[in-house]
Amino acid sequence: MTTETQIIARLRRIATDPAARGLADDAALLDGLVITHDTIAEGVHFLPFDPPASVGWKLVAVNLSDVAAKGARPRAALLSMCIGDPDWDELFLDGVEAACESYGLSLIGGDTIALPAGAPRVLGMTAIGAAGERVPSRSGARPGDIVWVIGTLGDSACGLQQLQADAKSTGFLVEKYRRPVPLLADGQALAREASAMMDVSDGLLIDLERLCDASGCRAEIDLDALPLSRAFIAERGQDRRARLFAATGGDDYALLAALPEGIDPLALPLPSDSTIAAVGRLAKGRAIALHDADGPIELPERMGYEHRRD
Amino acid sequence: MTTETQIIARLRRIATDPAARGLADDAALLDGLVITHDTIAEGVHFLPFDPPASVGWKLVAVNLSDVAAKGARPRAALLSMCIGDPDWDELFLDGVEAACESYGLSLIGGDTIALPAGAPRVLGMTAIGAAGERVPSRSGARPGDIVWVIGTLGDSACGLQQLQADAKSTGFLVEKYRRPVPLLADGQALAREASAMMDVSDGLLIDLERLCDASGCRAEIDLDALPLSRAFIAERGQDRRARLFAATGGDDYALLAALPEGIDPLALPLPSDSTIAAVGRLAKGRAIALHDADGPIELPERMGYEHRRD
Repeated sequence: MTTETQIIARLRRIATDPAARGLADDAALLDGLVITHDTIAEGVHFLPFDPPASVGWKLVAVNLSDVAAKGARPRAALLSMCIGDPDWDELFLDGVEAACESYGLSLIGGDTIALPAGAPRVLGMTAIGAAGERVPSRSGARPGDIVWVIGTLGDSACGLQQLQADAKSTGFLVEKYRRPVPLLADGQALAREASAMMDVSDGLLIDLERLCDASGCRAEIDLDALPLSRAFIAERGQDRRARLFAATGGDDYALLAALPEGIDPLALPLPSDSTIAAVGRLAKGRAIALHDADGPIELPERMGYEHRRD
Repeated sequence: MTTETQIIARLRRIATDPAARGLADDAALLDGLVITHDTIAEGVHFLPFDPPASVGWKLVAVNLSDVAAKGARPRAALLSMCIGDPDWDELFLDGVEAACESYGLSLIGGDTIALPAGAPRVLGMTAIGAAGERVPSRSGARPGDIVWVIGTLGDSACGLQQLQADAKSTGFLVEKYRRPVPLLADGQALAREASAMMDVSDGLLIDLERLCDASGCRAEIDLDALPLSRAFIAERGQDRRARLFAATGGDDYALLAALPEGIDPLALPLPSDSTIAAVGRLAKGRAIALHDADGPIELPERMGYEHRRD
């Protein structure tokens, strides 16, 4: 068991309010508001040399991705900001402001603190969304549901590797890492029918495992069906190894939705440029089974990103 | 102008939603919910050798102090927690849980992240309160109002100095630093009549200056009237120097309320053990004027705690 898993188990014992949804979700639901908090840290969620405006954008986007996964509309946010370098801080706020304006999110409060000299930056946001008529949890999926992925996988992890090899890298994949786009309209459309939904932030396999655990289901996933971008394929190919990388990469901010069989997501009011793919099916049982055209595939040891895995 | 002031000015230009209250308040007001966020950092808001349970307690208490200052009832909280040392983390959560239970606060969500090795701990909380009939802001005070302080001043700053001199220090003042008590019942009672209210977190003078700026008032404060604990007086005396220390110390989590003249706070349903003192009066104009029985007092250069003062 990982340390993060232990801590979350402890937190669940504290968080008994129904609004907490057993902490088995990316967001709480209180008085018709979907409320989520994500913190990002330098050297963990972003690189010290990432442009500060992109860090500000990303902080907003990763929070709104959780709002999107609950089918909610952005409403308001509180920002926790460490300050110190006025130039960096101003550019960071440029990015926060741009993302808030793009998605109609009002900044309504927060905190500014100075960290000790030399400490890595830590930046947090609490985002609040207005819930729609349905707020799919992680736990509502049922055997027989089809597993859909909205957005492409692996781009961001690939962009991060490019930056780690050469800090001056640019291009589509780097932008996907630095400026993820929360799939708000997709989430709002899918929430009408989804039996379960969440965003893919740590990697498809680890996040799908969480959905399966919460729903008490088994997932049978066809690796060949994973949605990959042309940029990803140009960079990494699309063989089994590339697809396993995409399935475990993290930082995708795609959506993962379980829809009852027979529901056609293309009949929902999705944005016209959405990428949506059926990647498998839920069944009775537990855990994930992976296969492709060549047969079953053993699960990788690393299913995605975990903080402090022992 | 300080860096923190510059950043907050920039944030105010972004935060135009009425729920933000111009960021001239410690909390936002959205759909009948009072929402606030405070982050605390090792080496800034707590000492590396502070007992982890006291750090957890303090994180909850400083957030609930803002809820108290708006006269609201604790409702729910989201915790942003950095993890790494399982023993420390467990004890920290003991403190969070104890404070949540003490004040009826439900933990409903948050985030756990691992910081890079050696980074100082950064811990955040978003606290949500149910607003009462009135939610006093910082900006409603008027000339003629009486300035009241609920709780005692200087204890925590004194406890911090004891700990800085000797990490093994114990006693009332150290406990006031480590385990502040949010004045929730006082805040709920005073909110019925207060024209303005806030908590004293960075020091009476700097926080009163913020209230005066937001309200467009001048404050005339009698230093002799400051409420001091017997433990504080035993340690520091109560001369002008000791009182200036208490007025600028920070970490008090007292309440600062402006009440219209003629309102007797003792007629409000305050807890029977509350300490409440009239420390001055608001007038037309701006800034703070200090005096004691010996005459006017020049304002100290340092009015309280500010992050990144240049």
